[in-house]
Amino acid sequence: MDTLSKGLRNVVLDKTESSFIDGEAGILLYRGYNIHDLAEHSTFEEVCYLLLQGTLPARRELEAFSGRLKRQRALPPEVLEVIRLVKTAHPIDALRTTVSAVAAFDPDTSDDTPEANIRKSERLIAQFPTIVCAHESIRRGKEPVEPRDDLSHAANFLYMLGGRDPDREASEAMEMDFILHAEHGANASAFAARVTASTMSDMYSAVTSAIGTLKGPLHGGAAEAVMKMALEIGEPGRVHDYVSARQKDRDNRIMGFGHRVYKAEDPRARHMREKSRQLGEKAGQEKWYEILQAVEKEMARYQRHGIYVNVDFYAGSVYYLLGIPEDLFVPIFAIGRIPGWCAEITEQYANNMLIRPLLKYVGPKDLKYVPIDQR
Amino acid sequence: MDTLSKGLRNVVLDKTESSFIDGEAGILLYRGYNIHDLAEHSTFEEVCYLLLQGTLPARRELEAFSGRLKRQRALPPEVLEVIRLVKTAHPIDALRTTVSAVAAFDPDTSDDTPEANIRKSERLIAQFPTIVCAHESIRRGKEPVEPRDDLSHAANFLYMLGGRDPDREASEAMEMDFILHAEHGANASAFAARVTASTMSDMYSAVTSAIGTLKGPLHGGAAEAVMKMALEIGEPGRVHDYVSARQKDRDNRIMGFGHRVYKAEDPRARHMREKSRQLGEKAGQEKWYEILQAVEKEMARYQRHGIYVNVDFYAGSVYYLLGIPEDLFVPIFAIGRIPGWCAEITEQYANNMLIRPLLKYVGPKDLKYVPIDQR
Repeated sequence: MDTLSKGLRNVVLDKTESSFIDGEAGILLYRGYNIHDLAEHSTFEEVCYLLLQGTLPARRELEAFSGRLKRQRALPPEVLEVIRLVKTAHPIDALRTTVSAVAAFDPDTSDDTPEANIRKSERLIAQFPTIVCAHESIRRGKEPVEPRDDLSHAANFLYMLGGRDPDREASEAMEMDFILHAEHGANASAFAARVTASTMSDMYSAVTSAIGTLKGPLHGGAAEAVMKMALEIGEPGRVHDYVSARQKDRDNRIMGFGHRVYKAEDPRARHMREKSRQLGEKAGQEKWYEILQAVEKEMARYQRHGIYVNVDFYAGSVYYLLGIPEDLFVPIFAIGRIPGWCAEITEQYANNMLIRPLLKYVGPKDLKYVPIDQR
Repeated sequence: MDTLSKGLRNVVLDKTESSFIDGEAGILLYRGYNIHDLAEHSTFEEVCYLLLQGTLPARRELEAFSGRLKRQRALPPEVLEVIRLVKTAHPIDALRTTVSAVAAFDPDTSDDTPEANIRKSERLIAQFPTIVCAHESIRRGKEPVEPRDDLSHAANFLYMLGGRDPDREASEAMEMDFILHAEHGANASAFAARVTASTMSDMYSAVTSAIGTLKGPLHGGAAEAVMKMALEIGEPGRVHDYVSARQKDRDNRIMGFGHRVYKAEDPRARHMREKSRQLGEKAGQEKWYEILQAVEKEMARYQRHGIYVNVDFYAGSVYYLLGIPEDLFVPIFAIGRIPGWCAEITEQYANNMLIRPLLKYVGPKDLKYVPIDQR
């Protein structure tokens, strides 16, 4: 009772089959498949199927699955009205509110069978991009762009965001980003979803908890912070001074380095690094990649905890080069992560125990209640 | 790494000064004050002040605090529109969505200073009853009843719910219920709020997580389940047969008995028992109290874990006698618990560490990625 497990560091909550992370070796598997294979050969739709169903789909299965996602992209009109009402909200707050509202229109909301939860998972995956893009359009004073059913998940997202067909490199970079963010164990957002699910609350409640948790700068905020840093540095030649100044200031650390579970390089980082390089080259804006590369090299000189970059380090520059506003970086993380949240929630339901830790009371125990006029 | 802490049973997350629970002795303190003293002598407003500020208020402080609550009871018109849009939702889903939406209209949403968090806590406490009652009116096809500023928190809630001045016994029973539910350590809802807050996400996100978590039948659902049981039993004379039949059926246990932390009687139960008796007598409906008393006595014959009633056991009959629909029982729990959630969130912020446990991977590790046409 006297040992505190603050942050639940090193506490093993439960078993999982969704993903394997070897933080020492820098290995990440989704359902037994190496993230590098999935990043190089797979599509986001395939990864979603894998996470929800546990196996890679045959072509027929994948086509049926992708078809269901496409057919469910549109939002009920009442949900679009909710988005209009919260148009001034931060985009991640708007996503949290809207997903919570969608529960009122999903015929399966109160059906907690595994089959219904798969259907809800598919709807959530399908609708996340539509919600984020509708809010983005509305807050800019424009009408939402209706989803198209001839585009992949990633391409349709960029289409709804920009109102025009995205080029191939952009869609591929977006898809890579979604694949790399799809699942990552009991990170704080998935864990919040599990805590909510552990009371046998429904999937919308659990996903709403996850979105609100992802919002926090210690979880979903690193990509934005890194890109802000790159913009602040401005030129590769200024990296050395910037990094050494920050090293002296413990309260002002460089974001995008280190990770609670990775003590080696985050295996997802290399793929985002490459996309950052490619998009920068195509756009004639190599300097962001060069600045980030230089920061990475400079940081390697400081031999202490957290010298390896994580997935967020290059992600911000990819979003920036795709023309995405900074406050959409966290909602984009959510669009990538929703299949993983659904997989974790499903595991929690399948073998549930109420998640309720204890707290150690350190206050007084014998205060005497004094009537108000004698205080 | 091989020991699982499933459910986090016996894991001590952190220190707290908000409440002390001695489950063996059946003791509950809020900020050092015994729950019995608070139940007998205090008001809900005073308990809210105690939980948020850490000390009992002087009269002047309490008046200022109550005044701020009263002035902040009304909802922005856009928030009422959100409630209209989700009018078909379960009341707890409507509360979750509406609280999430309120974030867009709170000038302090993105101010995470302790002072701003106190202001947000006060607004949340003030507005929870208004949200619940507005949704209740709207789904019944009526206009929301505007809050009054000449009534206490509990009396104003009953006034907005029923559209007429509540009698003294009803207000006192409601207030007792709110006081008894105000805080209870790291229960699943407060813990979900802490997980969300641990990423340094904002208070609205954390409270939204808490509401979705409270929804689950393993957390907030017991009062409803107990009242359903009482209605099903129907007459005190049928209790013996009902309970013995249930004892033989492990999957169909009697709700309202036992608690993760209490191994003695939940100290809150006696106060709800007394309110149930009083209200039943006044209404000439003594039988619900008699049925519940008989269930309690019958259960005492089975000498095993969970023979003591918890706070929810008599709460359902109190709500029933106040004429409150069953699907509002969990939102009422939330109206009572919001000060405790705010206190727990505030503690998490004050001494934060990201909450992120590990999972033990038990799936395959070496699956070879096979191109789709070879599957």
